[in-house]
Amino acid sequence: MAKRKPPGRAKSAPHAPKRPKRPNESPGKLPGRRPTGPVGKAGGGDPYWLYGWHAVRAALANPARTILDARATPSAQKRLETEARGNLEARGVTLDSASRAELDALLPAGAVHQGLVLEVRPLTPPALADWLDRIGLGEAADTRDPAGPRAVLVALDQVNDPHNVGAVLRSAAAFGALAVLAPRHGQAPETGALAKAASGALDVVPYIDAGNLARALGLLKQHGFWILGLAGDAGADLAAADPGGPLVLVLGGEGKGLRRLTREACDLLAALPTRPPIDQLNISNAAAVALYELLGREG
Amino acid sequence: MAKRKPPGRAKSAPHAPKRPKRPNESPGKLPGRRPTGPVGKAGGGDPYWLYGWHAVRAALANPARTILDARATPSAQKRLETEARGNLEARGVTLDSASRAELDALLPAGAVHQGLVLEVRPLTPPALADWLDRIGLGEAADTRDPAGPRAVLVALDQVNDPHNVGAVLRSAAAFGALAVLAPRHGQAPETGALAKAASGALDVVPYIDAGNLARALGLLKQHGFWILGLAGDAGADLAAADPGGPLVLVLGGEGKGLRRLTREACDLLAALPTRPPIDQLNISNAAAVALYELLGREG
Repeated sequence: MAKRKPPGRAKSAPHAPKRPKRPNESPGKLPGRRPTGPVGKAGGGDPYWLYGWHAVRAALANPARTILDARATPSAQKRLETEARGNLEARGVTLDSASRAELDALLPAGAVHQGLVLEVRPLTPPALADWLDRIGLGEAADTRDPAGPRAVLVALDQVNDPHNVGAVLRSAAAFGALAVLAPRHGQAPETGALAKAASGALDVVPYIDAGNLARALGLLKQHGFWILGLAGDAGADLAAADPGGPLVLVLGGEGKGLRRLTREACDLLAALPTRPPIDQLNISNAAAVALYELLGREG
Repeated sequence: MAKRKPPGRAKSAPHAPKRPKRPNESPGKLPGRRPTGPVGKAGGGDPYWLYGWHAVRAALANPARTILDARATPSAQKRLETEARGNLEARGVTLDSASRAELDALLPAGAVHQGLVLEVRPLTPPALADWLDRIGLGEAADTRDPAGPRAVLVALDQVNDPHNVGAVLRSAAAFGALAVLAPRHGQAPETGALAKAASGALDVVPYIDAGNLARALGLLKQHGFWILGLAGDAGADLAAADPGGPLVLVLGGEGKGLRRLTREACDLLAALPTRPPIDQLNISNAAAVALYELLGREG
């Protein structure tokens, strides 16, 4: 079990591999605040029903979200028209009245819609290079925010369960991670279940198409990020291994862990302090704890 | 956002309500280590199929677990007979060979059984008073462990989703919480899905029948536990509000939060440091982060 760390953050952990300092590694050169504006790009994919209070509220507030239809029970309609009138008007969305049973019929059995559904198109996941450009890390831009908080990204290595991916997006939004990345192959597609689990975060945190994940991690390294993989068999606890500064937290699929090439792309491996017989947490729980360690306890 | 706390733990948080010191409150009087031996009591409930590597391994290692049937694919059988021969022999369990498809047919669609299933009876949830007796906090016993780590329990206030309850048990085991409590009404029943999500923790951490939850929290108060409820609207961050010492972490149902009587039974309310628009994490994520804060970072 790791000893509680003293306040403040070590510049470099004893577990960090020796390697040359990265060009962008000086503190404060990376933006730590999500840019405002639309999250994602309007997509041309097949429409689906997005449901639940928080998911619907966030979709209405995201200008990039294409909304094709909107239905609500009378009580949910009343509440939404009170709390989100501005969004409804700005988007030109009119709610159709529907019974609870009519909404149930649109969704998978057991979906908790809270009286609200939207028919939407999935967002087109931004490509990593485009996103880096947009936040000021590409070749073309230099809009870095020296006063911003710490820049942390989450990379998912073939995490497919929509509830887990949704919960990771939710924790990323809650603790202020800039984005969640997933490889093109093995990225859980955007669905109502994923959006519900994300509780609005899908329209707040970019869910980036990383293409080939190992190459994407290489690109992020070049931009000054540390690449830290969570692995149950790592010798160091996360709190001790954290080198500080811009960082990509890499999580492997439940039961499978990090793939070999992903693991090799990591600068550091670290574990959470768990006790036998439990050698790892549920993937979304692990992400939440790690983001809390990296971001949540910062001043 | 809370500032990082200095090392060491304040005896009493500024947010703690004024109340008389509890009879058992002196540090070290409560056991902080789970007693060894069978977890739970053999139950007479309807058998169900428990599946997945970790869940099966833990069930085989728990003497209180009634096992009626055991089936495995040839490769899983080989692995289990190598890694858990002692448990199989001690329990007198013989594995029947089955194909993957035959195991699939026993389980709900999509269940990830990893080639291993057991037909088991649910454990009978221990009653709170009996469990307190057993760990040395009842009237009859005095087997307290002054050198033990911190005593933390988790109480679930009508958390019904089996994946969430399973993941909470898993985090409780991972970070060393002594037990998970749930009220008799609104306790998610033991099922294969819950056991799989718990990844073995169901046979490691007692899942206690708290009867009426508010009364159970009152009883725990009398035994020297602080009762701390997680609530998104609480003014204080958990790290700042934590009074130290024996503590019950109380979590409300997703979307519903803590019920009024549960909230009133709490000494303290605290929130996790989340950012808008996310005002709370998924319930199992919140439990994991809170247990990490309370237990995981201890020396």
